[in-house]
Amino acid sequence: MDIQTSVVAHDPGSLVIGVDVGGTKIAAGVVDALGQVYGRVQFSTDTSRPEATLRTVAHAVRSAIQAAGVSPAHIRGVGLGIPGKVDVENGVSVFAVNLGWRDVPIKRQLEADLAVPCRVENDVNAAALGEYLYGVGRGTANLVYLILGTGIAARVMISGQLYRGTNGLAGEIGHAIFVADGPPCRCGAQGCLEALAAGPALARSARDAVASGSPSSLQEVLNRGSELTAEHVCQAASQGDGLAMRIITEAGEHIAHAIYLLSLSFDPQVVVLGGGLAQVEILMDAVQARVARKAEQSPIFRDIYHAQLVRLTGLKQDAGILGAAALVASPETI
Amino acid sequence: MDIQTSVVAHDPGSLVIGVDVGGTKIAAGVVDALGQVYGRVQFSTDTSRPEATLRTVAHAVRSAIQAAGVSPAHIRGVGLGIPGKVDVENGVSVFAVNLGWRDVPIKRQLEADLAVPCRVENDVNAAALGEYLYGVGRGTANLVYLILGTGIAARVMISGQLYRGTNGLAGEIGHAIFVADGPPCRCGAQGCLEALAAGPALARSARDAVASGSPSSLQEVLNRGSELTAEHVCQAASQGDGLAMRIITEAGEHIAHAIYLLSLSFDPQVVVLGGGLAQVEILMDAVQARVARKAEQSPIFRDIYHAQLVRLTGLKQDAGILGAAALVASPETI
Repeated sequence: MDIQTSVVAHDPGSLVIGVDVGGTKIAAGVVDALGQVYGRVQFSTDTSRPEATLRTVAHAVRSAIQAAGVSPAHIRGVGLGIPGKVDVENGVSVFAVNLGWRDVPIKRQLEADLAVPCRVENDVNAAALGEYLYGVGRGTANLVYLILGTGIAARVMISGQLYRGTNGLAGEIGHAIFVADGPPCRCGAQGCLEALAAGPALARSARDAVASGSPSSLQEVLNRGSELTAEHVCQAASQGDGLAMRIITEAGEHIAHAIYLLSLSFDPQVVVLGGGLAQVEILMDAVQARVARKAEQSPIFRDIYHAQLVRLTGLKQDAGILGAAALVASPETI
Repeated sequence: MDIQTSVVAHDPGSLVIGVDVGGTKIAAGVVDALGQVYGRVQFSTDTSRPEATLRTVAHAVRSAIQAAGVSPAHIRGVGLGIPGKVDVENGVSVFAVNLGWRDVPIKRQLEADLAVPCRVENDVNAAALGEYLYGVGRGTANLVYLILGTGIAARVMISGQLYRGTNGLAGEIGHAIFVADGPPCRCGAQGCLEALAAGPALARSARDAVASGSPSSLQEVLNRGSELTAEHVCQAASQGDGLAMRIITEAGEHIAHAIYLLSLSFDPQVVVLGGGLAQVEILMDAVQARVARKAEQSPIFRDIYHAQLVRLTGLKQDAGILGAAALVASPETI
């Protein structure tokens, strides 16, 4: 049985399309009820004008349908995960810095173009829904999704529903100040978790340490005239570089502390870690070890903690598509 | 119009009774739909045997009905707030250290005795419901209730429902470790918020400081041979004692930090402060000032913060009765 046959066997309207709209690429795929992705396609994002980006989105949707070998009649809806602030009810991108968007009526324009219901959400919210519907958080009523990448943020499912908070800021632990007078954060504060443990923070720590004379294999990167990135730091740590390992261990401690605080707040069944840094084994090992350590030190947290409390996303490169697909696959969760 | 007339004017079944069952006293009152309390009564708690305590509870209920001058036919139900762990569905006190209870079937025994529906909840959960239904949190979908007394704990209302968490431990910020290797907490950990800022912590800080020679008017209390309590510290601080003021300011900073973390987690409309320490003006002033300061330092928190974010309970001595009453007045919130 090839993939096309498998998809066509679905009932009309049983499939959805998830579109992950980023500042550099737009990825789309057809998703079935079990979270299988068919007909993945990917295009560069044309950010010259919102209309151009939306044309690429519509093209990605049509291409995914074609690539999956299904009929448009099978498609129940299109979900879009986009960065920034979204007016979910009206499907408007209120603002998206990466895309240069402000008040773009995505839903209206795409529905007119594609003649199928569309839903739009912030991409991190969508990712949390994807974990809940298709990922390691499947079937857990209370889930915290912690995204660790160029930024850090948590999203929360409570009793099977996305909880946004009063101002859409629930779970913004990335901007909790963990170190008074710590390094500056892009939010304007100092010492936020994000400024201590997100990707750019790892790179900055390494640059500062090397510049102040700490011996490290990362010196070579700078000698080459390359920009030192979080990837360099993670790779050096994996290869046993002392400075890089210290940076990763410290970041792991801060992330573990966030997981601990989120757990005491939300008492979730599972904390799912996603984003680029969730793929860095040495960092994730440090996080898991420090969280387990906190359970030893803190009896109340021990009652919340279990060996499967903190789990890495299993969705990987499909996380964006599946999160977007979840928006239309299970609208009652939003 | 006297009080009795006002109560009797209510429809049959429009009134409920709230019973606040504590280790030293049992308070009950008749509560109308607006949260007015009539026929307050109070008895000492007989903790010799659970049956004896429950007899006092039943007596308190009958006494409150009589004191309010209403007919039992007006009473829709009886809510009970009790300390410790409660099996809400079955109305069983799983354990309550203060009462010496373990697996006491309160609901079954009281319903047999009083012939009216009874609901039992943990007293702090009940207090949060009371704030939501009758207090300064009235009409706010997302509310955090932070109780500051001999212990510290938060309870959370989300979309108008009490959110307990997976293990009934949501909001246990009182046992978040704020100071590594800090003072011991009754939970077994060190440096928990509760060990830094709850009533006994204030007393302990003062005792330690005075013992190590810090000059303070509190020395007199010890000279008298009295036990130094949180009340002494709060009073001394209000009278300008330097040591007591430092202790109160530090506690205020820790409590403000908890409010900040809870706000970044839950993004609530309001954080209601209750418990004995919420009556200490100098401490509450310190908390408000530190929370406002954090809003200046942290732009994301600034988007959550507003002048009415942190509010003191207005229920005061009726908080226990109203919280218990809320259990039967608005069962959909539980």
